[in-house]
Amino acid sequence: MQDFMTEEFLLNTETARELYHGHAEKMPIIDYHCHIPPQEIAEDRRYENIARLWLGADHFGDHYKWRLIRANGTPENLVTGDAPDRDRFQAFAEMLPLAVGSPMYHWTHLELKRYFGYNGILNGETAQEVWDLCNEKLKTLTVREMIRQANVACVATTDDPVDDLRWHKQIREDKSFKTLVIPAWRPDKALNLHKEGFAAYIGRLSEVSGVKIDSVASLQKALSLRMDYFDSFGCRASDHGIDAVPFADLSGVDLDAVLCSALRGEKLTDAQVEAFQFAMMLFLGEEYHRRGWAMQLHYGALRNTNSVRFAELGPDTGYDCIGPQGDPRKIAGFLNALNAKDALPKTILYSLSGGDNRMLVTVAQCFQNGDCPGKIQHGAAWWFNDTLEGMTDQLKCLAEEGLLGRFLGMLTDSRSFLSYTRHEYFRRLLCRIIGEWVEDGQYPKDMKTLGQIVENISYNNAKEYFNL
Amino acid sequence: MQDFMTEEFLLNTETARELYHGHAEKMPIIDYHCHIPPQEIAEDRRYENIARLWLGADHFGDHYKWRLIRANGTPENLVTGDAPDRDRFQAFAEMLPLAVGSPMYHWTHLELKRYFGYNGILNGETAQEVWDLCNEKLKTLTVREMIRQANVACVATTDDPVDDLRWHKQIREDKSFKTLVIPAWRPDKALNLHKEGFAAYIGRLSEVSGVKIDSVASLQKALSLRMDYFDSFGCRASDHGIDAVPFADLSGVDLDAVLCSALRGEKLTDAQVEAFQFAMMLFLGEEYHRRGWAMQLHYGALRNTNSVRFAELGPDTGYDCIGPQGDPRKIAGFLNALNAKDALPKTILYSLSGGDNRMLVTVAQCFQNGDCPGKIQHGAAWWFNDTLEGMTDQLKCLAEEGLLGRFLGMLTDSRSFLSYTRHEYFRRLLCRIIGEWVEDGQYPKDMKTLGQIVENISYNNAKEYFNL
Amino acid sequence: MQDFMTEEFLLNTETARELYHGHAEKMPIIDYHCHIPPQEIAEDRRYENIARLWLGADHFGDHYKWRLIRANGTPENLVTGDAPDRDRFQAFAEMLPLAVGSPMYHWTHLELKRYFGYNGILNGETAQEVWDLCNEKLKTLTVREMIRQANVACVATTDDPVDDLRWHKQIREDKSFKTLVIPAWRPDKALNLHKEGFAAYIGRLSEVSGVKIDSVASLQKALSLRMDYFDSFGCRASDHGIDAVPFADLSGVDLDAVLCSALRGEKLTDAQVEAFQFAMMLFLGEEYHRRGWAMQLHYGALRNTNSVRFAELGPDTGYDCIGPQGDPRKIAGFLNALNAKDALPKTILYSLSGGDNRMLVTVAQCFQNGDCPGKIQHGAAWWFNDTLEGMTDQLKCLAEEGLLGRFLGMLTDSRSFLSYTRHEYFRRLLCRIIGEWVEDGQYPKDMKTLGQIVENISYNNAKEYFNL
Repeated sequence: MQDFMTEEFLLNTETARELYHGHAEKMPIIDYHCHIPPQEIAEDRRYENIARLWLGADHFGDHYKWRLIRANGTPENLVTGDAPDRDRFQAFAEMLPLAVGSPMYHWTHLELKRYFGYNGILNGETAQEVWDLCNEKLKTLTVREMIRQANVACVATTDDPVDDLRWHKQIREDKSFKTLVIPAWRPDKALNLHKEGFAAYIGRLSEVSGVKIDSVASLQKALSLRMDYFDSFGCRASDHGIDAVPFADLSGVDLDAVLCSALRGEKLTDAQVEAFQFAMMLFLGEEYHRRGWAMQLHYGALRNTNSVRFAELGPDTGYDCIGPQGDPRKIAGFLNALNAKDALPKTILYSLSGGDNRMLVTVAQCFQNGDCPGKIQHGAAWWFNDTLEGMTDQLKCLAEEGLLGRFLGMLTDSRSFLSYTRHEYFRRLLCRIIGEWVEDGQYPKDMKTLGQIVENISYNNAKEYFNL
Repeated sequence: MQDFMTEEFLLNTETARELYHGHAEKMPIIDYHCHIPPQEIAEDRRYENIARLWLGADHFGDHYKWRLIRANGTPENLVTGDAPDRDRFQAFAEMLPLAVGSPMYHWTHLELKRYFGYNGILNGETAQEVWDLCNEKLKTLTVREMIRQANVACVATTDDPVDDLRWHKQIREDKSFKTLVIPAWRPDKALNLHKEGFAAYIGRLSEVSGVKIDSVASLQKALSLRMDYFDSFGCRASDHGIDAVPFADLSGVDLDAVLCSALRGEKLTDAQVEAFQFAMMLFLGEEYHRRGWAMQLHYGALRNTNSVRFAELGPDTGYDCIGPQGDPRKIAGFLNALNAKDALPKTILYSLSGGDNRMLVTVAQCFQNGDCPGKIQHGAAWWFNDTLEGMTDQLKCLAEEGLLGRFLGMLTDSRSFLSYTRHEYFRRLLCRIIGEWVEDGQYPKDMKTLGQIVENISYNNAKEYFNL
Repeated sequence: MQDFMTEEFLLNTETARELYHGHAEKMPIIDYHCHIPPQEIAEDRRYENIARLWLGADHFGDHYKWRLIRANGTPENLVTGDAPDRDRFQAFAEMLPLAVGSPMYHWTHLELKRYFGYNGILNGETAQEVWDLCNEKLKTLTVREMIRQANVACVATTDDPVDDLRWHKQIREDKSFKTLVIPAWRPDKALNLHKEGFAAYIGRLSEVSGVKIDSVASLQKALSLRMDYFDSFGCRASDHGIDAVPFADLSGVDLDAVLCSALRGEKLTDAQVEAFQFAMMLFLGEEYHRRGWAMQLHYGALRNTNSVRFAELGPDTGYDCIGPQGDPRKIAGFLNALNAKDALPKTILYSLSGGDNRMLVTVAQCFQNGDCPGKIQHGAAWWFNDTLEGMTDQLKCLAEEGLLGRFLGMLTDSRSFLSYTRHEYFRRLLCRIIGEWVEDGQYPKDMKTLGQIVENISYNNAKEYFNL
């Protein structure tokens, strides 16, 4: 019987404890994919209270928490609405004890411990004391301070090609902040020619890049210039949020015509959309390869399923779910098409369906080569899979089908400055799993080798992979 | 080392034992979905012998057991055929020891312990003593007595819209029986316009409802009247057994023409069938919402796969299997369509593919709101998933993606009056899983909160949800 | 804390240790499906060194190992290329410690222990001592000696219908070798009418069988004659490597025209290919049934995904992955079509998607009957699933949905003569899982029954099933 969330949280063997405290714990964090706003780092934002920090405002905030509060039957004004912050915090605190087995229960208490020094349990009765304590701490606990306390060596934000990266510029010029903050390239809007606002977006891209866009070639030229710009800010990776990995036969497809049609606001067929996206992804992959950037593919989310709430609250407000599983023929087909052009960049594959895990690792292994260790990666468990069960399955599938020692490890993928505790959560689990193997006689108790592997997965592998 | 199936069966921690014996064990059962015949309750049937009770007769009985006996290479006459009851029982008993790791092994021995006081092991050698003991007990152990002994507060049977509910009437009028027995509405036949017998069924519905059915509107009228009738018997829920959740674009579809075509026995396209079913489900969902009924969706079974045996034995004889996984776009699309009409009832989603579990919980969370706690539920592990592994996965997916404390808990979905032990099996597992979390330091050992959660999942949540 | 890979490897309970050492360990091996070349048995090949044995040469060898070495960023010439054997061995040894949690780590060390008496750990530093030791042993450790040491009672190789089985003949005539070596029938090339080389292959089949092939009937005649020939060599099983189980409506399809079209090298539609394959599988299934052969279906691999490497290295070089999951409607439909003709042979179903496991067992149970115990089998975890997690899932799905006591157990499916340790690995895991159930109170500690079950799964069930 272990007490709740002690220093040995999740470390159920002596081996795990040695690996965590002797190796994992001390490594800095490279958070190579997240959604925190660089503006808040640049301005070193101070949050008014714990409700603003945890529950957000104006429909921007932590949709993980919102979903759980809604599941408790709480009316929306206490979730994202205009109820007083203290009341919204109360609704969250009263729900929390019911979230037995939820990562939210662990994230919340890890954050309370690490950032606020609170070692109690949050519930309806302790809400007031937690509210008071956190708000007092938040007077000095700015976002930069959170990043510093978490020992974060590098943060890669997620940025649009049209972004002028002004906040990144400001952060770089401020020598008082030691953490490396770099942009990552997320060109989804330039590829989503079937979605509302495409023509306007291309107009904006044209303006920013100084390239008149009226063909695929000119679109690519504009993107290429913007990639140069991102590269000058130290960008090391792209990211794509896609329904599914596109793959198509391009013969006989007039891509310029498809693009112009989209710019005129005409309706396209699914086949046209997929062909265009496939062609663009081939182009982009080649560009990433040339620049030494990694290509991240996040596929399989079904977004904005609740149309009433979408109309009221907009995207990223907690109405997304796990979509269809991936098609290995298309995923392998896409990687192969790039590889056949000798233009396959380092690639990280993330699926929102945990059922894809084993398949994805086996696909990745088909494109490994001497370019670098672990060139094609199965990314850490993502979003709905970023849980003890989900991370365990990802790690075990990777260990059984790939080469665990070359894994890039964790990222937060978060909008919150408190989420660095997810790296701790992941590292504890990693040490737990390895510890169980060792103490079950499945791997020698060779702490030198294992310590190195754990340090590599925690930090060194990412540092080398992203050339940081 | 625990002995086989003691009082602490599955309770592998002190926390689990406290939660089970202090909380779960004493709660009454609400069996909100099952397939027991109300006639047998009304008439308080007495089974002649344990073979009739366990193995059935006349092709009506426990297909779980039949499948296992067949897998042992046993000829059909000893399974569903006309071999003597004692011989059929022997075939079952001889197979049983080979069913290592099967829920059948546990169900059987739990039933022997709880209803018959037999604490031995059933196998070929003990078959005679078990036969004698059970048959002696069955002289007084009627079906009502089984229900009473199991502390069942409420049973919801599964009934067809054309049913006159005469047995329900008789049960209600008999004040000597304290368990609340209510019907549940299962209108599959009214929606399966592509299946044999549809026209005849509609004829029967027309007769029973007094509505001439020659259009979608009149079909809906007839169903609405029958729903009123069911409601007057305390019906609180519907149930749908569907291949897949339907979703279609209804624009340009002449549903009346489709219906009439079906009534004339003409062949329909798959698209016509799905459009009709989608439209009818929208109508029904709205009706359920208006009445405060819950909508249960059981999808993903592939039925009657063995055509030879289907011709000989009919449906529900053990020739069904797990069908294709669900399509999250359609499931979310259907719920969204109802929600957009402000007509989404309380809904319980069950898939026969365990691989859908995590996806389904994430879909459910997209439609939670302030109407009631846990409005959209991921239903308990169903049929082929009603096993230790299957239930564990359902509970963990729910705990990680949803709000476990608001879960409705178990149901038998069974044709047998002995199956209430499945509630015990489920509750023991629930306490085991929570106990493991607590003793691993993943949740505080707060027995007041946890005891309440366990009691709620065992009983209170269902009582509140179904307004009982 | 157990030391690494002791005599009690994986045996974490007293029950498991009793079952393994008292029962499983002593049973001979029936390796009823593998890919070892009968020529090497006939000639009793001696491998020059451990690199040749483990890493192969000339693009023939262990692609499991190749994939891991590539994932370590090793250039291809050190994998399948012309680098010196000692250097290739070094690259493997240096990668191995990073393969934490991989079956390769266990297979490698089990092979070192069992065949070479090496009890150390292989890594970059011990590579030289392992190299020296193994090469010394290989002077006398021929392939027949490996088979003898592993206590293999029977090996079924995988052979093409046009094969003259000359090596099988030679092995049979050599009375000094006691292990029964029989062919298995793998007619993939005769069914793959859409693949390059089909016409040439049919020409070869025509020649070997003496039947002019210009129609489906004559193709079937030729295959039937070859089956007679295989049968005369003791063949007891077929094997099919298929993308997916075919199922089609044959009405209105002119199969002769499809065949002739293929023989002329014309392009076929997917529907034509599937119809032809379905028809041929129906024919073959019936033939197997008549001969008492078992039908093995391996589906769901996506092969040769890396076209550059395929052009360089050919097939089976480590560029395959897990393909789409199976369609239960087609799998059940195919079995039903055979069953409806009273021609369903004993069948073993293997999917490369672990997500199919539970579904596949439920499909299998729909076609069990009195012909023999466990007539339709869910095959042992295959290829990418042949891991601790993969085997555990297969065993638990089978135990929960089928009848574990009738399971046929393990096979190597391997190209290596050292892979018999995979039977040991499997048996240890089987005893571990049963041991955990017993000591958790889920099954009585009845060692007589359990010992018999373990012996049956290890050996007796396969012996009976294949009529050996």
